[in-house]
Amino acid sequence: MRIEADSMGSMALPEEVYYGIQSLRAKNNFNMTGRPLHPLFITNLARIKKAAAQTNYEAGLLTKEQADSIMKACDEIIEGSLRDQFIVDAIQGGAGTSANMNANEVIANRAIELLGGKKGDYSLIHPNDHVNMAQSTNDVIPSAGKMTAAELLKAAVAELKRLSKALNQKSAQFDKILKMGRTQLQDAVPMRLGQSFSAYESAIKRDIRRLTLAGEELLSLNLGGTAIGSGINVSPYYYAAIVSNLNKLFDCEYRQAADLFDATQNLDGFVQVSGCLKSCAVNLTKISNDLRLLSSGPRTGFGEINLPALQNGSSIMPGKVNPVIPEVVNQAAFQIIGNDAAITWAASGGQLELNAFEPVLFHNLFESLDLLRQAAQTFTNLCITGITSNGDKCLKHLESSVGIATALCPVLGYEESARVAKKALKEGCSVKDVIRKENIVSEKEMERMFNLFPMTMPPRQVFCIEEVAKL
Amino acid sequence: MRIEADSMGSMALPEEVYYGIQSLRAKNNFNMTGRPLHPLFITNLARIKKAAAQTNYEAGLLTKEQADSIMKACDEIIEGSLRDQFIVDAIQGGAGTSANMNANEVIANRAIELLGGKKGDYSLIHPNDHVNMAQSTNDVIPSAGKMTAAELLKAAVAELKRLSKALNQKSAQFDKILKMGRTQLQDAVPMRLGQSFSAYESAIKRDIRRLTLAGEELLSLNLGGTAIGSGINVSPYYYAAIVSNLNKLFDCEYRQAADLFDATQNLDGFVQVSGCLKSCAVNLTKISNDLRLLSSGPRTGFGEINLPALQNGSSIMPGKVNPVIPEVVNQAAFQIIGNDAAITWAASGGQLELNAFEPVLFHNLFESLDLLRQAAQTFTNLCITGITSNGDKCLKHLESSVGIATALCPVLGYEESARVAKKALKEGCSVKDVIRKENIVSEKEMERMFNLFPMTMPPRQVFCIEEVAKL
Amino acid sequence: MRIEADSMGSMALPEEVYYGIQSLRAKNNFNMTGRPLHPLFITNLARIKKAAAQTNYEAGLLTKEQADSIMKACDEIIEGSLRDQFIVDAIQGGAGTSANMNANEVIANRAIELLGGKKGDYSLIHPNDHVNMAQSTNDVIPSAGKMTAAELLKAAVAELKRLSKALNQKSAQFDKILKMGRTQLQDAVPMRLGQSFSAYESAIKRDIRRLTLAGEELLSLNLGGTAIGSGINVSPYYYAAIVSNLNKLFDCEYRQAADLFDATQNLDGFVQVSGCLKSCAVNLTKISNDLRLLSSGPRTGFGEINLPALQNGSSIMPGKVNPVIPEVVNQAAFQIIGNDAAITWAASGGQLELNAFEPVLFHNLFESLDLLRQAAQTFTNLCITGITSNGDKCLKHLESSVGIATALCPVLGYEESARVAKKALKEGCSVKDVIRKENIVSEKEMERMFNLFPMTMPPRQVFCIEEVAKL
Amino acid sequence: MRIEADSMGSMALPEEVYYGIQSLRAKNNFNMTGRPLHPLFITNLARIKKAAAQTNYEAGLLTKEQADSIMKACDEIIEGSLRDQFIVDAIQGGAGTSANMNANEVIANRAIELLGGKKGDYSLIHPNDHVNMAQSTNDVIPSAGKMTAAELLKAAVAELKRLSKALNQKSAQFDKILKMGRTQLQDAVPMRLGQSFSAYESAIKRDIRRLTLAGEELLSLNLGGTAIGSGINVSPYYYAAIVSNLNKLFDCEYRQAADLFDATQNLDGFVQVSGCLKSCAVNLTKISNDLRLLSSGPRTGFGEINLPALQNGSSIMPGKVNPVIPEVVNQAAFQIIGNDAAITWAASGGQLELNAFEPVLFHNLFESLDLLRQAAQTFTNLCITGITSNGDKCLKHLESSVGIATALCPVLGYEESARVAKKALKEGCSVKDVIRKENIVSEKEMERMFNLFPMTMPPRQVFCIEEVAKL
Repeated sequence: MRIEADSMGSMALPEEVYYGIQSLRAKNNFNMTGRPLHPLFITNLARIKKAAAQTNYEAGLLTKEQADSIMKACDEIIEGSLRDQFIVDAIQGGAGTSANMNANEVIANRAIELLGGKKGDYSLIHPNDHVNMAQSTNDVIPSAGKMTAAELLKAAVAELKRLSKALNQKSAQFDKILKMGRTQLQDAVPMRLGQSFSAYESAIKRDIRRLTLAGEELLSLNLGGTAIGSGINVSPYYYAAIVSNLNKLFDCEYRQAADLFDATQNLDGFVQVSGCLKSCAVNLTKISNDLRLLSSGPRTGFGEINLPALQNGSSIMPGKVNPVIPEVVNQAAFQIIGNDAAITWAASGGQLELNAFEPVLFHNLFESLDLLRQAAQTFTNLCITGITSNGDKCLKHLESSVGIATALCPVLGYEESARVAKKALKEGCSVKDVIRKENIVSEKEMERMFNLFPMTMPPRQVFCIEEVAKL
Repeated sequence: MRIEADSMGSMALPEEVYYGIQSLRAKNNFNMTGRPLHPLFITNLARIKKAAAQTNYEAGLLTKEQADSIMKACDEIIEGSLRDQFIVDAIQGGAGTSANMNANEVIANRAIELLGGKKGDYSLIHPNDHVNMAQSTNDVIPSAGKMTAAELLKAAVAELKRLSKALNQKSAQFDKILKMGRTQLQDAVPMRLGQSFSAYESAIKRDIRRLTLAGEELLSLNLGGTAIGSGINVSPYYYAAIVSNLNKLFDCEYRQAADLFDATQNLDGFVQVSGCLKSCAVNLTKISNDLRLLSSGPRTGFGEINLPALQNGSSIMPGKVNPVIPEVVNQAAFQIIGNDAAITWAASGGQLELNAFEPVLFHNLFESLDLLRQAAQTFTNLCITGITSNGDKCLKHLESSVGIATALCPVLGYEESARVAKKALKEGCSVKDVIRKENIVSEKEMERMFNLFPMTMPPRQVFCIEEVAKL
Repeated sequence: MRIEADSMGSMALPEEVYYGIQSLRAKNNFNMTGRPLHPLFITNLARIKKAAAQTNYEAGLLTKEQADSIMKACDEIIEGSLRDQFIVDAIQGGAGTSANMNANEVIANRAIELLGGKKGDYSLIHPNDHVNMAQSTNDVIPSAGKMTAAELLKAAVAELKRLSKALNQKSAQFDKILKMGRTQLQDAVPMRLGQSFSAYESAIKRDIRRLTLAGEELLSLNLGGTAIGSGINVSPYYYAAIVSNLNKLFDCEYRQAADLFDATQNLDGFVQVSGCLKSCAVNLTKISNDLRLLSSGPRTGFGEINLPALQNGSSIMPGKVNPVIPEVVNQAAFQIIGNDAAITWAASGGQLELNAFEPVLFHNLFESLDLLRQAAQTFTNLCITGITSNGDKCLKHLESSVGIATALCPVLGYEESARVAKKALKEGCSVKDVIRKENIVSEKEMERMFNLFPMTMPPRQVFCIEEVAKL
Repeated sequence: MRIEADSMGSMALPEEVYYGIQSLRAKNNFNMTGRPLHPLFITNLARIKKAAAQTNYEAGLLTKEQADSIMKACDEIIEGSLRDQFIVDAIQGGAGTSANMNANEVIANRAIELLGGKKGDYSLIHPNDHVNMAQSTNDVIPSAGKMTAAELLKAAVAELKRLSKALNQKSAQFDKILKMGRTQLQDAVPMRLGQSFSAYESAIKRDIRRLTLAGEELLSLNLGGTAIGSGINVSPYYYAAIVSNLNKLFDCEYRQAADLFDATQNLDGFVQVSGCLKSCAVNLTKISNDLRLLSSGPRTGFGEINLPALQNGSSIMPGKVNPVIPEVVNQAAFQIIGNDAAITWAASGGQLELNAFEPVLFHNLFESLDLLRQAAQTFTNLCITGITSNGDKCLKHLESSVGIATALCPVLGYEESARVAKKALKEGCSVKDVIRKENIVSEKEMERMFNLFPMTMPPRQVFCIEEVAKL
């Protein structure tokens, strides 16, 4: 065991660990979720620390040896090493100071080791004075949060694009399948199955656009602001170079926020991203619900489409297959909506120069972004691409319905058309039967009026006044 | 015009108005929703003011003349007069001070008038010193809020009881209608339509119980606490007598809170009521969704029940009838859930000795309670009681399904039963057809196994081991 | 009384009313909130009906007489007449069919009157066949909803711009006021009061940008889609001309949606607007909370700023003045967040070709937009512009604090600086006192280090290594 | 590798694994959160399976050998073995069928092994026919969910009781500390610090009561209902004995639901528990916010209490200590509120005879219950018990304030008292100074009026009318 001390006192740590006393205190203080920081968030902490070391070196405030060892330690973390040394809970008090200090301590101790020193000998590399130089939790944590969210968002959008493409393909595939359109779950007027899928595609495309726009806000970092955004203890060189160094090192396109006080204290940019995720969750919910409804049955439901059968649907009912993928997409959507509530609360809780609730906000936002990516991927791969249609059932439904009476309105007027429709319903026959029985229009005229395919294609030629006159 | 002054300066008011300068300032300051205080909330303000006047008189702190005129003015308001004199917006800053002062001013001016004075001559009856004597916004507003919520809740629960009874009657009426049960919208096993309705009844009964329990919390008032709950400026007599006087005057059963500081600053009791409303909204949503689904069609949906037809369902589609009542119940439920969010935010915003956000909390809670009452009443009267069943369609669905293969499991085992079910699905025939074709059990045995009615009645006799052995 | 009939039967209506049987049925069916349709929504229904009549006339499907009378009736409604004839509840079942039919009936009867006919004689002008020609609830209602939301959003954004400008002015006015920055409510490092206000301005500017972007989605209408988006019963002329006619008549810039099925069934565009309102509510909450905190006191709080005194703050505590405007802004924000929940639920409830829950969605969205406009206006006029600073108290706070020990770090290192700070806290003296007592740096050096103003201005020159060496 | 087959086809599994083909399919299908089932949920699945085996044995439907091996396998899982064999994601499609089958397969294979068989040889013990005998996902999953929630709730309530007790102790400890009460963050009237803590205690006690009541609903299980609640394939013996056997085996007090259809399809009982958690989160938020406010400073804030210092508060600001425990409690509360939203969505999504969204509901509810337990424990141990008061600062605040002018009202009336208070504020002096300067009452009378301690104790003797007359 080695002994470390801070201004609160001293503690013993296992000799081999890279984290230090502040990490350990935090672990003891925050025993909340049992879940670690998001791996990409750790990566981004290390990226910032590397860029900071490089910049402080260029500013003449770290020696080459100090900077090199810090940067090497960061690289190891970025590549996936030392991850078990990040011991603080995802939800922690203190606005992320514990996460930041965990990174500072692990990097310092690994850098010390690389310099041939002994872990805990912070005279070589100090977690605060060297690794955290020109930084504060106030700028490191929001910046790492934005970087993480931006990357996860990009990955989620990529999967939404695949989903959109899959929907487009289904739309083309089902373009000739005539079916009954339904409003308020009641028979309405004819349409084609492809039109259902192209409506889904249109909705997802809006989500892609919105998320992309919201994601741009995430590119604005408050690095250089240190505490509260005032830039206290930052050299002019660092202030000017830190973000461009970060971009150069990691091939990215961040920019320094114009108002560092604002960028330090306000988390509304994350709320905005989460709001867009919520909009997307609404669309995914709608699509999933529709697919579950259209595939309901197989015998006693709508049964107009078939979802791929992926697993037994019941432990007791043999042969049952359930719409498990839309169901899990529904659940991802519910989780995203719930997380949005937590995010909104956390963001609203900011006070004066800082928001102390970033940890819970990030925890929820990263989960939502991960979930959206997984849900979209699963939806595409295991459901959408394998959907097949029951064209016969669709047509049978369509032909049985009285909804086509709508096509009578321009000729007969709403009231007379309603009478015909109601009579068909009451007598259990078809609209055509009523028209024939009552000899309302000629058979030929009727066939023209009830030509189903054109009914689904706007704009179509309405029956002209003269033709009506001739009836 | 008359001139009134307060410590901020003076303003002109129309001679005829009963409200005073503080009401007018508040009206000018808070131009938010354009909606007035809830009428029952105004009634309860007047009830409290009456009980306070009576109590202060008994304590020797108001003269008989003063008390009588105040109490008479309160009675007029309680009976519905002077309502247009309550001019402040439902959502207002100041924790309800403006609502309280609006009541104090209207009552004072009406009492002055009754005493033969001129409105505005507060030397006769002063809004603060006499009408508000031994009171503070801090105790009057939460108490009036609780009284209002308690009464609205009682009315809502009464309608839920009617709904529950209507569901019970349908459950009896449909007790013999065999139908297919569905899980995850897929055909499952047989049940009776009455069982659907008795499940709805069971859920609503839980809501009644929960709301009743939560409502009991509302009976605890902080009258006597004045500012912050310390009871400053309250006479011992008033402290001891105010709640019992209120109960005597208005035949109710309130009690004084044991901890007046707590009862002044914490609004969690309202959150609890709203949480129970949310639970009820969940059940109403489920029931409405089910009814819309079961009545979907009429030709291309489930079509197992019929909802009463109440109005034309479309401006363009003749003969269409929509499930408008479940739809509006759905919407009431959504509103209640949304209001619950606003209520939770408002309640969480309390700081130290007071919660400044009572106005928006009350506005939402009263709306939710009103909505629940109306939705339950509408649901019962215009939908549930008129529902009819399509027994033939139910039975046809049931017989067409392969879900009854579940009944084979105890005899054939899950795997073999699944093979039979899948074969039926694949070949487009019934489970019985497969059994016959493959001669799996005798016709007689099969009929016994597929005796539908007993399948819906737990507990039933399982096929005994010996019988299986004989197969 | 006059008698009207529809396919459900007949009802008696007062002779003088312009609404008809379907409006009356709806009024009886939906007794929910007691609140009417939003006035601007009624205006937009009339605008659509006017543009439709014009277009149907141009298409040769209405006579000039018919079209003129319909258009004249619409103009009267747009100008504010006949508003009491819109009798249906804001929350209604049926996806807005009742609102649409209420408009159709009022317009038809007024047009009939203009033609010299008798109200109810629909042979002259029929609500469905003429007023609603080439339309469906499915396209009229979402389009009127978008138009209304777009206009209300524009008005709200205008008020946000005024708020942003007011914050900017305060930022300039307070640019020289030094004060203590606080993170997690604990003393942090120096800043200027102006920087607080410029951070608020930055946040509001983001809201303006987001709302403007989201508002653009609202310009896409599904007129021409009639039922489900298929354009059934629409003439090619109408399909092509309706939106441009609407734009010409009312000088606006709508466009026809590319995918009419999507635009009919999906309400995510409204969710997106509401999500942006929620982001804005988060910022307004944060700013209001800060202002209430900074003005807390007057004697026992932070007391660094003064809000305008607008009304007496208490019915019992004389001289008390409360932060009533931030409090009411807080409440508007809570309401907007609650409404967002209701909106999200409603939008998610769409099924297949339509979302039946538009009425409750619109009701909430319009309220949120109205509230944001009012809240922003009230905030600007009655609070922000009148805020004054207590520069002396700010400076006194700043000088009493040990937070300036942060400026020691680059010279003394984190650990030694912490020791100094803790000693000052423990001994109840200032950081300077400790430095002097321990003779850590020269008085001159100390003054340079603790030069407060530069500490608040990034980027500043850090103490150079050589200077440290000389200490 | 061993090969397993189901009706979808066959798959290879590593020889050593206890899970089977259905678990593996589910793992592949649901790659969502990467998080496993809650450990206590797995325990409860095993408890149910054990009780079912015992009951089926008693019913004569399992041999002793079969039952013993199944029960032994269950015991091993209950004791913590085989946990890594539960491979399905916490969020999964299919209403929990995958979780149930994962348990069935692991138990079957372990039982087979105990019988000397080879894993995968389901002729010995079949996952469906033997382990799942007389059960369905429809009854096993909701029952395991209720059992888990009930136990977690009990543990959380136990921590709330400890919190309540700690608050009570602080209330006693601080009973003599006079301080200024604040409403709307503005100076109000005197109180004692102990009263703050006893108000917190009162609120938490309500939470304990509510949670306990809501928890009782969880004791009602739908075991015996199998699919949809109809009890299909259940023997009368099992139906009658399963719940009492469960109670006997595990010393608990569950009961069988009266309406099994209801208990299968409706999840409102979980919503109710979550709603109570939300009420509790509101109280925890309020208390945490208050503690952070009262401890703000140390130099430029309220500074009336001190929270225990647990860790360095900043990576850059030396000596800073933050209110990290209230901050993390705040975050737990936000998470609980967010989870409540997800739970409400999931519960509302039930359709007809089942709710497919139990997995996401349970995931959120279990997390909320765990979080509440941890948050309450952390709050008690690391914050509340260590709070100290700054009595001097409290008193200094109190004496500096003009809020005590409220005590003048019964003597001088509201308007005159307000004049005095405003004058004191304007002239920067105390209320007493003004009274003395203007000679309003005698020094002795003034001291009696401003006797602070009695002001905080209701009910106190108001100044009697006669005394006023003598002034």
